[in-house]
Amino acid sequence: MRVSQLPFLSLLLLVAIPLQAQTPLLGFDAAGADSQRALEQEFDSHLDAGDLDAWLREMSRTPHHVGSARGREVVEYIAEHFREWGYDTEIVEYEVLFPSPRTRELELVSPGHYTAGLFEDSLEEDPSTSNIKDLLPPYNAYSIDGEVEAELVFVNYGTPADYEVLERYGVSVEGKIAISRYGGSWRGIKPKLAAEKGAIGTLIYSDPADDGYGAGDTYPDGPFKHESGVQRGSVMDMPTYPGDVLTPFIGATKEAPRLAREDAPTITKIPVLPISYRDALPLLSAMGGEVVPEQWRGGLPITYHMGPGPARVRLKLEFNWDMVTAYNVIAKLSGTEFPDQWVIRGNHHDGWNHGAADPLSGLVSLMGEAKALGALAAAGKGPKRTVVYAAWDAEEVGLIGSTEWVEDNAQMLSERAVAYINTDGNSRGFVNIGGSHVLEKMANEVMRDVIDPQTGVTVDQRRRARLEVEGSEQVRSELKSRKDLRISPLGSGSDYSPFLQHLGIASLNIGFGGEGSDGSYHTMYDTYEHFTRFKDPGLVYGVSLSQVAGRATLRLAYAPRLPFEFTGLADNVNLYLSEVEKLAEDMRKQTQSENARIASGVYELALDPTQTIRAPLPKAEVPYFSFAALRNAMAALEDAAADYSAVANSGTPASVQDNVLLYTSERALIDIDGLPGRPWFTHHIYAPGFYTGYGVKTLPGVREAIEERQYDIVEEEVNAAATVLNRLAVQVRELAE
Amino acid sequence: MRVSQLPFLSLLLLVAIPLQAQTPLLGFDAAGADSQRALEQEFDSHLDAGDLDAWLREMSRTPHHVGSARGREVVEYIAEHFREWGYDTEIVEYEVLFPSPRTRELELVSPGHYTAGLFEDSLEEDPSTSNIKDLLPPYNAYSIDGEVEAELVFVNYGTPADYEVLERYGVSVEGKIAISRYGGSWRGIKPKLAAEKGAIGTLIYSDPADDGYGAGDTYPDGPFKHESGVQRGSVMDMPTYPGDVLTPFIGATKEAPRLAREDAPTITKIPVLPISYRDALPLLSAMGGEVVPEQWRGGLPITYHMGPGPARVRLKLEFNWDMVTAYNVIAKLSGTEFPDQWVIRGNHHDGWNHGAADPLSGLVSLMGEAKALGALAAAGKGPKRTVVYAAWDAEEVGLIGSTEWVEDNAQMLSERAVAYINTDGNSRGFVNIGGSHVLEKMANEVMRDVIDPQTGVTVDQRRRARLEVEGSEQVRSELKSRKDLRISPLGSGSDYSPFLQHLGIASLNIGFGGEGSDGSYHTMYDTYEHFTRFKDPGLVYGVSLSQVAGRATLRLAYAPRLPFEFTGLADNVNLYLSEVEKLAEDMRKQTQSENARIASGVYELALDPTQTIRAPLPKAEVPYFSFAALRNAMAALEDAAADYSAVANSGTPASVQDNVLLYTSERALIDIDGLPGRPWFTHHIYAPGFYTGYGVKTLPGVREAIEERQYDIVEEEVNAAATVLNRLAVQVRELAE
Repeated sequence: MRVSQLPFLSLLLLVAIPLQAQTPLLGFDAAGADSQRALEQEFDSHLDAGDLDAWLREMSRTPHHVGSARGREVVEYIAEHFREWGYDTEIVEYEVLFPSPRTRELELVSPGHYTAGLFEDSLEEDPSTSNIKDLLPPYNAYSIDGEVEAELVFVNYGTPADYEVLERYGVSVEGKIAISRYGGSWRGIKPKLAAEKGAIGTLIYSDPADDGYGAGDTYPDGPFKHESGVQRGSVMDMPTYPGDVLTPFIGATKEAPRLAREDAPTITKIPVLPISYRDALPLLSAMGGEVVPEQWRGGLPITYHMGPGPARVRLKLEFNWDMVTAYNVIAKLSGTEFPDQWVIRGNHHDGWNHGAADPLSGLVSLMGEAKALGALAAAGKGPKRTVVYAAWDAEEVGLIGSTEWVEDNAQMLSERAVAYINTDGNSRGFVNIGGSHVLEKMANEVMRDVIDPQTGVTVDQRRRARLEVEGSEQVRSELKSRKDLRISPLGSGSDYSPFLQHLGIASLNIGFGGEGSDGSYHTMYDTYEHFTRFKDPGLVYGVSLSQVAGRATLRLAYAPRLPFEFTGLADNVNLYLSEVEKLAEDMRKQTQSENARIASGVYELALDPTQTIRAPLPKAEVPYFSFAALRNAMAALEDAAADYSAVANSGTPASVQDNVLLYTSERALIDIDGLPGRPWFTHHIYAPGFYTGYGVKTLPGVREAIEERQYDIVEEEVNAAATVLNRLAVQVRELAE
Repeated sequence: MRVSQLPFLSLLLLVAIPLQAQTPLLGFDAAGADSQRALEQEFDSHLDAGDLDAWLREMSRTPHHVGSARGREVVEYIAEHFREWGYDTEIVEYEVLFPSPRTRELELVSPGHYTAGLFEDSLEEDPSTSNIKDLLPPYNAYSIDGEVEAELVFVNYGTPADYEVLERYGVSVEGKIAISRYGGSWRGIKPKLAAEKGAIGTLIYSDPADDGYGAGDTYPDGPFKHESGVQRGSVMDMPTYPGDVLTPFIGATKEAPRLAREDAPTITKIPVLPISYRDALPLLSAMGGEVVPEQWRGGLPITYHMGPGPARVRLKLEFNWDMVTAYNVIAKLSGTEFPDQWVIRGNHHDGWNHGAADPLSGLVSLMGEAKALGALAAAGKGPKRTVVYAAWDAEEVGLIGSTEWVEDNAQMLSERAVAYINTDGNSRGFVNIGGSHVLEKMANEVMRDVIDPQTGVTVDQRRRARLEVEGSEQVRSELKSRKDLRISPLGSGSDYSPFLQHLGIASLNIGFGGEGSDGSYHTMYDTYEHFTRFKDPGLVYGVSLSQVAGRATLRLAYAPRLPFEFTGLADNVNLYLSEVEKLAEDMRKQTQSENARIASGVYELALDPTQTIRAPLPKAEVPYFSFAALRNAMAALEDAAADYSAVANSGTPASVQDNVLLYTSERALIDIDGLPGRPWFTHHIYAPGFYTGYGVKTLPGVREAIEERQYDIVEEEVNAAATVLNRLAVQVRELAE
């Protein structure tokens, strides 16, 4: 080989990691950016897919839910590794109420008779499905006990819109058992709404059109839901508050004062049980009444009817209402310069069963990061700020481990927490980052620095390619006009919720997906075999997740000036504000014209007189609201954000006070009074929907007041949101001056 | 009772038949309008649902297809009635090629084995389904003979867009048997496209999601398709030309010169057979290959795969290629003033089987009209113009009876035919009128004068109510801004096609529907029992159809000035012109941006590298076209139309020459050269789609040239359409002066 070929080789390297040396890094000066990127390369060199695979295989051998003996073993396994890698590791315990099933009975009593199996088949093709010591059978945690017998009413997804349809058909769930399919809203909304409408029980099944053979080949031929598969899951009323149902607002320590169980507002009001489509078929087949509207039809080979009845079922549920210990593993590596500024990185460890995908595929990435950072620290390159790795317990049943720890340490975390980086499982495909928009720019810089293992381009480029191919014209046009990709706002569904929405700690949630197929979610089939066949063979995206979440953690831990930024936040919140203004406007027009149609009698002429469907009921007309307070607050925030942006880009060194102002900026967005009817949720920009569950509502106080037609509190909520945004604007102004 | 109460009673009558006496009637002066409406009331008094019911019951007793002994009996039955009512009645015979099945074999040869039943179950609940003398088993008429064995490829609906999807997956039907579901396009398009793509056979089945238990309860529990039900139907290439395959352009008289069968271009190139979803299930279950995209999934309880194979089937089809006699019943009542001006009113009489809904429910309305008009004539109130009632044979197999009669009498009809009013079955609900926009205003006047039997408002008001409830914002806004409802342009699928699209005779097609449910179409279950349970119990809408089609016929037959009008036509054609301009514009932008995406390589980054789906192929960029010739023609037509409108409303009496110019106005829109590649279709405003079948294409030459990217002929077609519109403008100008 001739020497002159060498420059060609380095050119190739430049192509592979494009322009990094030339690209600035938020929070670092030019030299700092170079050395940070060198450090991250070194970090990467410690990541090993083989490690991740071995840890995943071991921890997912058998079921390991909260309160199980195997769960305790997994905790020790994790803690030992952290200790081995040099972390100050403790196992923090909380005493929490955890119901496990004692009696589960479901039968069709007429017409005909069918006793539901309520079990999942073990499969020869997947040995893990025979390792079922400590198996939790299919159930919904925090269903109340009860025995009920009544006719069935099919409520589709059981959303507010579905009940409006039933009302038009004159069908009520009052005194009936609602049978709903999974999807359309978070599962906990289904029994909550059904109970509000007078139902005495709820069944939830996975329809094969959504999650079964309709979606693709079923396990073990393919990844999709086996006919016996049942999605377990918590139905605690998390949009009211997550965590231990007996200790809202406070840590569930041994000595904590507790509600009586019967006073716990987040336990369901009626019994609820999830079932497979194999068990749903005989029940739905036995139903009569009106044929459902087209959008309600599922994938079973029957005509779907809404009832009520004649199918009549008996449902009996009894639970062991045990107090069990939840174990969080908390592993600290103290910061060399700012030990009281904590960058927290977490993933839960409890699974509904084997939990290979959920949560272990995320946890092994976190462990890989911890090992790599431990190695850097051991080489004298430890972080400026303290990094805390957390493996949470009892996430599945209600974000309990994280919530109790956050409540227990609220004061300290409010003072010290710089940010929280969450993962909760992983798959193959495209990076997804959701979270606080003060971290949007940093998140984008990270995506531009990590290479996709399948294509060799950056994960940012891959995500952009997908948006270019699948996005709307608006999304495509924004790809050209906006430098950064938008990160999505967070609702609920994982452990970031208490950090972000209760304490106002800037948070990110990160995962890859879109190419791994799945029907294993919360079933017995979430095994190592399923995961490595269908979701991330070889755990190559496990390493990618370590690279993305690791960089986010490292930049927050090493940056002289914390990589927070406010122009992206202002841009996104302006969008949300436009949305709620448009929502009010559209609802006003639609309500007016629909009420006019109803009053004019056209429905009576348009509807088939031989059918039961009737005109909708008129709705309260939407008044005009003033959004001026929010518009003014946004103007102030935009100005301050632009000015701070100039400061951040100027290379001015950050004082300690600057960094405190930066990482407490998200605190400005919470307000101790919380959201209407749910004071635990204090964030006025992001919250889970009260009637949608996990799905986010941005500007939630304002948006939900409009959506739920509580017109009298809309302007109050506009003012509340304006107050927190003004508070942030003042804080950013202080940073900019 | 006091005398003073009488005015109150007449007020009630005014409410029931609102404002008619005050409302002008196109073609009549004020006094003429009053007496015409009085005549129509008298006409109504002769209509009797009991008559319709008795005729329907008798004629639908057993199957009665073209060439059957029972078909001949039905012809006599109809003719006898016409004669009885005073009509000059003849039975006009044509000798046509009619294939009926001799061999139908279909089996899955591997993996496993399944022999398709290919029969429909007789049902105890419906005695007609055991009266099956002369039953035609399920088949597609004008499939070629053949025996083929090959792997299956699932092609969804078998449309051009579906083949683009297959191409992206690298799946070809070359040398395979395509299995397609009914829907998405006219059935004849499926074997036509499959053959063009290299397939050697086609199966067509009714998917239960579209037409079976997915749509609602199945027969006999409900109206929807029984698991054994098969939609028969012609697959002759009607978008090339309808009618007897051996005698294009000429009547199939005994002595007519004929093509050799092997030269007939409208017989399929490959064998094709329709099957039930009961027979399709084992075939589709045995398929492998890629899982189909979400939009392709049907309602069978399986995962749908596109193949090819491994399912391998053998299909053997042999037909009796018989020459049979088609019998049209033609019943004339001579006009008192203008016997050589003919108003033609038709409905076919042949059915695939019992044919209660299709066609008899429309035919009995026609017979009711004929009886009523006969009574008026007997009372000395006969029509000014000749009225011709026609009951066509062999419609089902390819619009043969009507087409041969039209071709046979082309010169006479071109001179004499004022208009053609078609029906082809009926149901319960809302009136639907499609057709020539020169008759749009008259059609609207009719709808405003007929009362809906279920609600007591006019059928116009009921239709408006439905559009108000279900329509888009644009439709709702037009309900306020436009006086008349738009009538829909006609494609093909019934006997108006030769009148309108070959000879340029203004036509309407009328039927009620939207509240009668159906899965019986072209199956053995299209019986009297099914019809009177689910479609029009008591034939009350049968009478409404007589009232609507009767008024249209009567006004054309009695009006001093023919009720043609051109502002509505101009308005609709302007809309079509805007559509084709927008089509070119949208296709240009989409092609540009999609080609740019393909060239940029984003697909390679966005698609899952482990799957077979690939980027689409680039398409020819769309040049800019000049539509100026059409815009200029439309400007001239709009001016002339407005001026004629003033004349028509002024009460100026019409000369004989005026009326000839009026009823030949539609002739201006045809051009002897016809459409590209299909000279039989001479109308340049309305045609069935060459690759969609029954569905209409307006401005078809221009629109299809753009859609099929035959850019070199677009402006030629713009000029051809402009030529006919200019010709019409000149004719209307002559009328206006």
